[in-house]
Amino acid sequence: MNHPAPRPEFTARYFVESSVASEKIAQVIAGEQSSGTFLSLPGETDELKERSRARVVSIEPLAPTLQPTLPSAYVDRHSHGGVFHRAEIEIAFPVANVGANLSSLLATIAGNLYELGEVTGLRLLDIDLSPDYAAQFAGPAFGIPGTRQLAGVQGRPLIGTIIKPSIGLTPAQTAELVDSLCAAGIDFIKDDELIADPPYAPFDERLRAVMPVLHRHADRLGRMPMYSINISGSVDEMLRRHDAVLAAGGTCVMASINWVGFAAVEYLRRHARLPIHGHRNGWGALTRHGGLGFSFQAYQKLWRLAGIDHLHVNGIRSKFWEPDESVIASARACLTPWAGLQPLMPVFSSGQWAGLAPDLYAALGSVDLMHLAGGGIIGHPDGTAAGTASMHEGWEAAVAGVSLNSYAESHPALRRALVHFANL
Amino acid sequence: MNHPAPRPEFTARYFVESSVASEKIAQVIAGEQSSGTFLSLPGETDELKERSRARVVSIEPLAPTLQPTLPSAYVDRHSHGGVFHRAEIEIAFPVANVGANLSSLLATIAGNLYELGEVTGLRLLDIDLSPDYAAQFAGPAFGIPGTRQLAGVQGRPLIGTIIKPSIGLTPAQTAELVDSLCAAGIDFIKDDELIADPPYAPFDERLRAVMPVLHRHADRLGRMPMYSINISGSVDEMLRRHDAVLAAGGTCVMASINWVGFAAVEYLRRHARLPIHGHRNGWGALTRHGGLGFSFQAYQKLWRLAGIDHLHVNGIRSKFWEPDESVIASARACLTPWAGLQPLMPVFSSGQWAGLAPDLYAALGSVDLMHLAGGGIIGHPDGTAAGTASMHEGWEAAVAGVSLNSYAESHPALRRALVHFANL
Repeated sequence: MNHPAPRPEFTARYFVESSVASEKIAQVIAGEQSSGTFLSLPGETDELKERSRARVVSIEPLAPTLQPTLPSAYVDRHSHGGVFHRAEIEIAFPVANVGANLSSLLATIAGNLYELGEVTGLRLLDIDLSPDYAAQFAGPAFGIPGTRQLAGVQGRPLIGTIIKPSIGLTPAQTAELVDSLCAAGIDFIKDDELIADPPYAPFDERLRAVMPVLHRHADRLGRMPMYSINISGSVDEMLRRHDAVLAAGGTCVMASINWVGFAAVEYLRRHARLPIHGHRNGWGALTRHGGLGFSFQAYQKLWRLAGIDHLHVNGIRSKFWEPDESVIASARACLTPWAGLQPLMPVFSSGQWAGLAPDLYAALGSVDLMHLAGGGIIGHPDGTAAGTASMHEGWEAAVAGVSLNSYAESHPALRRALVHFANL
Repeated sequence: MNHPAPRPEFTARYFVESSVASEKIAQVIAGEQSSGTFLSLPGETDELKERSRARVVSIEPLAPTLQPTLPSAYVDRHSHGGVFHRAEIEIAFPVANVGANLSSLLATIAGNLYELGEVTGLRLLDIDLSPDYAAQFAGPAFGIPGTRQLAGVQGRPLIGTIIKPSIGLTPAQTAELVDSLCAAGIDFIKDDELIADPPYAPFDERLRAVMPVLHRHADRLGRMPMYSINISGSVDEMLRRHDAVLAAGGTCVMASINWVGFAAVEYLRRHARLPIHGHRNGWGALTRHGGLGFSFQAYQKLWRLAGIDHLHVNGIRSKFWEPDESVIASARACLTPWAGLQPLMPVFSSGQWAGLAPDLYAALGSVDLMHLAGGGIIGHPDGTAAGTASMHEGWEAAVAGVSLNSYAESHPALRRALVHFANL
């Protein structure tokens, strides 16, 4: 390990598996992703290295394995014997290599290193930036307090749902559904990620159909249910759509962050006057193999830098692959202030219903979240209003520290939900 | 399988592994990614399904496995016995669900499906769009002929190299290096993906330092060596930088496509008057596990829709993990016209030198490529000019069908390269 140089740095922590010793592969990665290579290059002066070279901060060895986690033709060609070394390593990069440039930051911490021949496993586990450096990025503009203020909901989770069917409803049908959901007392409604601007339900027409409904309910409620309308598309269309939502009095915009991409989301954030609901569809491709890709911990920090306000974390006991502990860890990561940037509001969805509130509250100790239920609201045997009420009642019981069963004695919507959903 | 409906569709082909039968998981994916779910929803009329539901086109069974490829807490909770079914499936989606919207296209073909609980392996293998539909996207503006024209190189590969050290050179040092590379006869020079706009070598200063050098050599050569300068950054900076390159007489811009993202790259393409050099750093995270993520075949089509002109494919016998057959297949994919969109120019790099030309030519039957060598040029024992000459001579021998050894008899640069590099 080198001594820390007196230069501003940021760090990245990785799981790494390699056919070469962990000390060596850490140096290879640090070199590949900064100035140094094992080849001595003309022009690579000591001064340049001092300025630009990444340094290995730490290496924590893990138990080695005899089988490579990921294939490598390079390893097959240069057989180094049968042991694959594993470690968690931390590397410090000079801030001056990157500047306030998200795509350069990603190219540095998550670029060619995934393809290195000696590497048979590589996962970005975490990153850390100083508050000074992080302040140069956009960061969330609204976060939890800004979202609560716009939604008019304090002291409890935002209870929400998703427009279903995912795709295929006309603007009029969408507005009708939004009307019934608002009548049922919902706080938050989001478009499915599949719908953005299809020819039979163009964005502008959808917005035009839905906004009067929201305004009517806002007049009644004294607060406007938050409708997270999917503006994902080209850069100019997203900005134009954001402006249309703002002009119509809407309070949120949604984007498929992985596919819109970092530069466009950050650009939207610099322009936006509304919270950005970050939908992470496609995230499974980046995280689902434990020896490759990204941890959610790193991922949420990167998107926090880009400036989204809400981020999906799946649900506990959902239809998705993810273990509950992982879902909870993701939500906690979102809720933790970091590098001077405010928390993201975690969004729980898939397989959610009233009965899960106590477990969520026990795990998080917080009501700063969106709890989205589809079937858990519209599938309630007494209808959507009872479904929404049951979600509120579940959280009331959780926060009061009362068991669901005893709270249900005086709350029929919760009672029916417990009977109906507990055995599904 | 349903009968094809009389509606425009596009298709996606997947490898899928699941705890449930392939026929069922194919329907689940089709439903999850379009209108249908197994739950019957209010509003999900027959008309809506007809308009919006994806359909399963084909299922080709593969040998099952007893161990899941990817973990799933859902499978652990709902144990379905010990067999995991595998298949290649093809799904057809209505064009009307998506329109000409890259992020919606990705959300549809590569969204939540990676996280489905019953799915223990999922990889997007290929996509297909009709020429009518593909024409609504940007597509490459320059491709191979446009690049050749700007570089003034016909009938042979563009021989190129990468500015090294990757990061740390001042603008003056960069210009000096570019000068020596141009003097050595190089066709193409690219920035490393790590450098974009660091404080000690700001983009504008780098451009200002390099352009006079390129113009001086252009005057001498009658063609300007193509310098692919890394403009990756925020949306407005990328556009501004593109304009600065264009105004200074430059002929190419480069972007880290995965981290800039689809919307910003497509936006750049709609604005650009120069070819876009697509650097794929980070690609390993998306592809390196065979049971997850994306195949290059699908990836290059998606970026072709976005409108890049060049795309990296690694090198044969490189320092990276990828088998040579995979590198060649990637280059072939780039070179194949598709859906009315012109081919991408494949970019070979890492571990490249003159001696690899015959194998590349034999595998591709084409000289429409960029062949980038670092050490293979600057590490030539007789210097950079000899290194560049050796690359040309390697390709001359390959195209003429003459063995390297016999061509080397009358070509000293190649002869020295063969002695020096063959045993490295």
